[in-house]
Amino acid sequence: MSRHGHTRSASSQIIDEDLQKAIQRYEDFTTTDWVKDAVHERQRKSALQSMNKNSDSWRSWWALTFESAQTWIVISLVGATIGLNSALIAIITDWLSDIKMGYCSTGWWLNQKFCCWGIEEHDGTCEYWTNWSEPLALGRDVFVVKWIFYIAWATCFAGTCAFLVKHFAPYAAGSGISEIKCILAGFTMKGFLGGWTLLMKSVGLALAVASNLSIGKEGPSVHMACCVGHVVSRLFANYRQNKAKMREILSASSAAGVAVAFGSPIGGVLFSLEEMSANFPNKTMLRSFFCALIATMVLQAMNPFRTGKLVMFQVTYDRDWHFFEYVFTVIIGIFGGLYGAFVIKFNMKVVEYRKKYLKDYAIAEAAVLALVTAIIAYPNVFLRIDMTEIMGILFRECEGPEGEDYYGLCQQSEVGRMITLLLFATILRTVGTIFSYGCKVPCGIFVPSMAIGATFGRMLGLIAKSWQSAYPDFFLFASCQPDVPCITPGTYAFLGAAAALCGVMRITVSVVVIMFELTGRVTYILPSMITLIVTKATADWFGKGGIADRYIQVNGYPFLDKEEHSFGVPVSHVMRRDPVVMTASGMKLHEIETIFHDTQFKGFPVVQDKTSMTLVGYIGRSEMLYLIEKAKRINRAHSDTKCDFRPVDDDNGVEVIASYSEETQDFDEPNSETEVINFGPYVDQTPITVRPQFYLETVMDLFKKIGPRIILIENLGKVVGLITVKDVLRYIAQIERRDQKSDQGSWNSWLEQRNWHLSSYTRVFSRDSEENHELQQQT
Amino acid sequence: MSRHGHTRSASSQIIDEDLQKAIQRYEDFTTTDWVKDAVHERQRKSALQSMNKNSDSWRSWWALTFESAQTWIVISLVGATIGLNSALIAIITDWLSDIKMGYCSTGWWLNQKFCCWGIEEHDGTCEYWTNWSEPLALGRDVFVVKWIFYIAWATCFAGTCAFLVKHFAPYAAGSGISEIKCILAGFTMKGFLGGWTLLMKSVGLALAVASNLSIGKEGPSVHMACCVGHVVSRLFANYRQNKAKMREILSASSAAGVAVAFGSPIGGVLFSLEEMSANFPNKTMLRSFFCALIATMVLQAMNPFRTGKLVMFQVTYDRDWHFFEYVFTVIIGIFGGLYGAFVIKFNMKVVEYRKKYLKDYAIAEAAVLALVTAIIAYPNVFLRIDMTEIMGILFRECEGPEGEDYYGLCQQSEVGRMITLLLFATILRTVGTIFSYGCKVPCGIFVPSMAIGATFGRMLGLIAKSWQSAYPDFFLFASCQPDVPCITPGTYAFLGAAAALCGVMRITVSVVVIMFELTGRVTYILPSMITLIVTKATADWFGKGGIADRYIQVNGYPFLDKEEHSFGVPVSHVMRRDPVVMTASGMKLHEIETIFHDTQFKGFPVVQDKTSMTLVGYIGRSEMLYLIEKAKRINRAHSDTKCDFRPVDDDNGVEVIASYSEETQDFDEPNSETEVINFGPYVDQTPITVRPQFYLETVMDLFKKIGPRIILIENLGKVVGLITVKDVLRYIAQIERRDQKSDQGSWNSWLEQRNWHLSSYTRVFSRDSEENHELQQQT
Repeated sequence: MSRHGHTRSASSQIIDEDLQKAIQRYEDFTTTDWVKDAVHERQRKSALQSMNKNSDSWRSWWALTFESAQTWIVISLVGATIGLNSALIAIITDWLSDIKMGYCSTGWWLNQKFCCWGIEEHDGTCEYWTNWSEPLALGRDVFVVKWIFYIAWATCFAGTCAFLVKHFAPYAAGSGISEIKCILAGFTMKGFLGGWTLLMKSVGLALAVASNLSIGKEGPSVHMACCVGHVVSRLFANYRQNKAKMREILSASSAAGVAVAFGSPIGGVLFSLEEMSANFPNKTMLRSFFCALIATMVLQAMNPFRTGKLVMFQVTYDRDWHFFEYVFTVIIGIFGGLYGAFVIKFNMKVVEYRKKYLKDYAIAEAAVLALVTAIIAYPNVFLRIDMTEIMGILFRECEGPEGEDYYGLCQQSEVGRMITLLLFATILRTVGTIFSYGCKVPCGIFVPSMAIGATFGRMLGLIAKSWQSAYPDFFLFASCQPDVPCITPGTYAFLGAAAALCGVMRITVSVVVIMFELTGRVTYILPSMITLIVTKATADWFGKGGIADRYIQVNGYPFLDKEEHSFGVPVSHVMRRDPVVMTASGMKLHEIETIFHDTQFKGFPVVQDKTSMTLVGYIGRSEMLYLIEKAKRINRAHSDTKCDFRPVDDDNGVEVIASYSEETQDFDEPNSETEVINFGPYVDQTPITVRPQFYLETVMDLFKKIGPRIILIENLGKVVGLITVKDVLRYIAQIERRDQKSDQGSWNSWLEQRNWHLSSYTRVFSRDSEENHELQQQT
Repeated sequence: MSRHGHTRSASSQIIDEDLQKAIQRYEDFTTTDWVKDAVHERQRKSALQSMNKNSDSWRSWWALTFESAQTWIVISLVGATIGLNSALIAIITDWLSDIKMGYCSTGWWLNQKFCCWGIEEHDGTCEYWTNWSEPLALGRDVFVVKWIFYIAWATCFAGTCAFLVKHFAPYAAGSGISEIKCILAGFTMKGFLGGWTLLMKSVGLALAVASNLSIGKEGPSVHMACCVGHVVSRLFANYRQNKAKMREILSASSAAGVAVAFGSPIGGVLFSLEEMSANFPNKTMLRSFFCALIATMVLQAMNPFRTGKLVMFQVTYDRDWHFFEYVFTVIIGIFGGLYGAFVIKFNMKVVEYRKKYLKDYAIAEAAVLALVTAIIAYPNVFLRIDMTEIMGILFRECEGPEGEDYYGLCQQSEVGRMITLLLFATILRTVGTIFSYGCKVPCGIFVPSMAIGATFGRMLGLIAKSWQSAYPDFFLFASCQPDVPCITPGTYAFLGAAAALCGVMRITVSVVVIMFELTGRVTYILPSMITLIVTKATADWFGKGGIADRYIQVNGYPFLDKEEHSFGVPVSHVMRRDPVVMTASGMKLHEIETIFHDTQFKGFPVVQDKTSMTLVGYIGRSEMLYLIEKAKRINRAHSDTKCDFRPVDDDNGVEVIASYSEETQDFDEPNSETEVINFGPYVDQTPITVRPQFYLETVMDLFKKIGPRIILIENLGKVVGLITVKDVLRYIAQIERRDQKSDQGSWNSWLEQRNWHLSSYTRVFSRDSEENHELQQQT
């Protein structure tokens, strides 16, 4: 069946790197076809294996061994780089944070800890560490001067950071978790994982965290880790050419990102599994495990905090948990849920406002936010100090060997003032987080949420403790023993942190593990689990999906969330009917160019002819553009050049095309060879097809689990339609808009906020903000 | 298009319970069609929702609320029952174990602990606790008498257990993990999760564990948990009728099973994710989390061990880990890998031998095993005591508040004897495990593996410690401080347990978490991870897949493992060509009966006619059998009755059948109505179809991730073949047999054992043991 002069064998269908590069040019903001990608990878592997069988030399053995070792080499490199990068950022952040307070007179590049190394006084300062009020000769420790310096530095850091991000790497802004979720699901965003983004995000993150904005470093840490994964693995041809392998590396990098941010390698793996990845087979889990291990080991070897411990907030209490305390557990759980729902709702409003009015004032916005935060935060010790530090303090117990008194937390006489301070800290930081998260600096929401949860939890713990010591005979406290401390407020802070994190991200198992790895204790596992179940139930009542999913919706990325939907309609209701098709033979170049001019479709089904509509395959627009451009350049193709889409015989004994109509016969004349553009080898003969009666949910499952870019709908042997993820999302948006309308005035309209999340899908498709304009055109 | 007199609307395609029951009769040892199942569930939900829209009363609101609350009610019930069952078994096991040693003179039903409650002496005994040598008046404490009683009781327990299992519930034998993996993937085994199996497994497990065989209770605990899940959820119609929902419950139950076995709720969830479930969306994870939580809470509330702690082996050390100790970490890792490979290899040989020669001697085998184990184990204290107890002892450190001396483990003078004892314990228990695991009593391999790892680890730790105290100046030990204990052998035991467990099961992340929850410490996370990576790499070198996967292969269950394969062939190489089809109209009953007589296929593609071979749908044999039987009974169908397979119009505007051939026209005559068996409504119009060029790997992905029972192959609008999981497995077996032959005599034939696992697939299809005979016939 070798009808074509330059037939390519099946194995040479591996698209060469040249073509791949050319195609990649057209591929920003599109989705990956995992099926095709997997096919290429398998062909490459088979080729390598058969090479090995033919030549039994040590060289082929070496090639195979290197091939299988390469994955682990790449992952080790990635992990080590992530650990290194994280250690560097920690050192810079530490120094910048201290600069806000003062400087080291023996060397400006030293932070307070190193400046005072070995000669530290009890509060961590020493004579070499000069606070900013000293050189002004206004006294050694003037509150107002220190406050002003603090504010000035914070504003300056935030402004610089926003400036860098805006001018050098706009993708470095925000947390990055939403985008990486989409990238892991197959969405292409050029430059999002580039080296320049990595650099700016690293520098920017140090500045942003030091500016004391209500933001954390975990989201950005994941983003940076993925940048590292992308940049490092791009050095290896196997990864550059294969998106599925790249995705594996990115999953592993996400795990390492969380691992270094929290010192929590297993928590990182679970986070990658629960939140980030659409597809997480055991193979990927093992790689994530290894990558997180290497990253954590490097970080620990670098030891940027000079503690020598991986566990960030070592806690030592190991008290029994009383049955009555489950009441407080549930209260904390409810708080976490409400916090999550509240922050998501209002942060989304801020995002909308920012998109509308603040687009051109990113630098000013960041600076003003830092200014206001600094003014408000400084007088309240629980807001002034770095969030991770304050969490460590809040988690501690008062009694026992390390039961020092932190800012009065443990003094019985101070309880009233402490409760007030903690309440204000909770409220103010919540407001700060709502306004700060999503502004144009690198920012995460993990640590602020945890800090808010910890202040709330500690407050509740203090209240419970005072209550118990005031009324020890109250029936609730019957199980307390007389002379032993009954309630440990530190555990409440711990539970609060877990609850707030779960409320805002909607992850459960990974939160439990992260909290254990953070504190080094597994004792309070049951209370933690109860808290998180309550939080999850409460938060989900107000709308499904964590803050990362909301950002995906708001930005209109083509991402099918993991939730199960139930529509009960067949795919024929949603598919695009009568798709534009290429006929296997008999098309002229000008016809194709007209189609290209009139439509923006990313690919076309190839059929035998327009009467039978029998499916032959599917061809991508990018491949066609490349071939046409090449044909025009080399073969002087003109508008009447014939185009042939007949796939080559694949030597499998399978008929690839049934009958040849009359008009195609002339292709076989040798003279017409140069007059034909042969698209055949680039026709994908294995598009996924379903029948129109297929349920939409099953089609969504196919998109999510198998990952084609497009699904063709075939009925009784004819192509009758096609469907993409965008079509599904558009349908969901319609359904939800309709439901919303019919719900108005019904008995649950008072719960309007519950439906709020529904409207976000709608918004995606009704809005035409500049940055998403191009998305509208995509397949 | 309502051509049929008794047209059914699309929504009434929900198969009624009567039909479902009738069909289920035929379904033992088949696979579930998840796609169809999901469709039914969606139809049920839509019906419920539309009902709610039509009648806006509180009753429909209540129905919907109950519907959504039901899941959580069922899961709570399941979790609570699992916790309860586990507590009861623990109490019985404890009592039976003590009975081997003696009895309580104040009440025979009391175990040693309760007998001596409050009046306990330092070694746990008291005057009321009578050991068996006392009543014989041979002296208070005669070793030989005690030994004989110990042996007699152990043999008696094991024999009774095997007798019960053999006569009342054969499915209660073994661990059950392999079978549950298959059931979760969709395989149907009637009675495997029944109430009778649950009862026998519970009683049998208590007896088997008490008989001191080298077996653990974790595998059976998972099986029992799944039985509870199945038995309890079967009380609710939604679960009885829907296998997908049942599968969710079973995933959650597996998690709870591990949770109660180890007191490790998060570890249970991860085990269910990593080892058990083919499909684990976040929704299932949350449910598993909840189920494990409830089960653990109930168990803790029951408090069968009267310790009040969830953490089984509370350890208190928190020492720094020295860099040089990573050397020992790696050694332990290698040991774990070798142990896993060794046990799997030889246990498989024992399994083969047992199948061949010991099939009829199950009771005698168990009794002899217990006898031999008891004779050998009694003199060695590390073998005599219950495995969980010995692990707790081995994990402890010598110094510190609880640094008592356990059987001389901490005495410097005893080091040599201890190392010898530990070495023998390691070797003997390994041999015991190889022979015991898989015998016809309920038995798990988790705890024996962990105990073996712990004895090895502790031995290595003792060696390292003696080395360090003998040569403190050796360069390796430079980082040790002079007066502080440098090496803690307890941590080595901990690492050893983790390594052996990983080696035999090939799970990593869940092992880490289980170990943390067992010991309550997160401090040694990096050493643990390194050990497990080394173990995994070592063990995988000798062959992929844990012992559960090997049992699946040996038993020939239709299960596609999670490993990725690379064949590089299209599905056309593997598919069954020219399948037996039903033509949409024009078939007579006798033709169908001939087909049924000649073939054992579980279903048939329905085509328009045999010339065009245009696909109309797919129909199951069970449905057809049911309808034919009904038609014969009610409508007096005879061999010339016409059979109509034309699907009904589904009101979606989709043509369901293209053109009607002449001969079918007469169906429309009203008189012939009763003469036609109408299969139309039972034709599945949405079979999954692929093209013959599809790569086999993608087809396997479809089976694994989407879960159809069958995939049809369509080319150019014609049905050309079909493929099932069995076909894929058969192809894998062929490939591996071929590879094995070509490998013989090659340079790596010395590593024959590496290829051992390949032959297991082959064995499945070449053997015809009685119990798998019926499997051969299945689709």
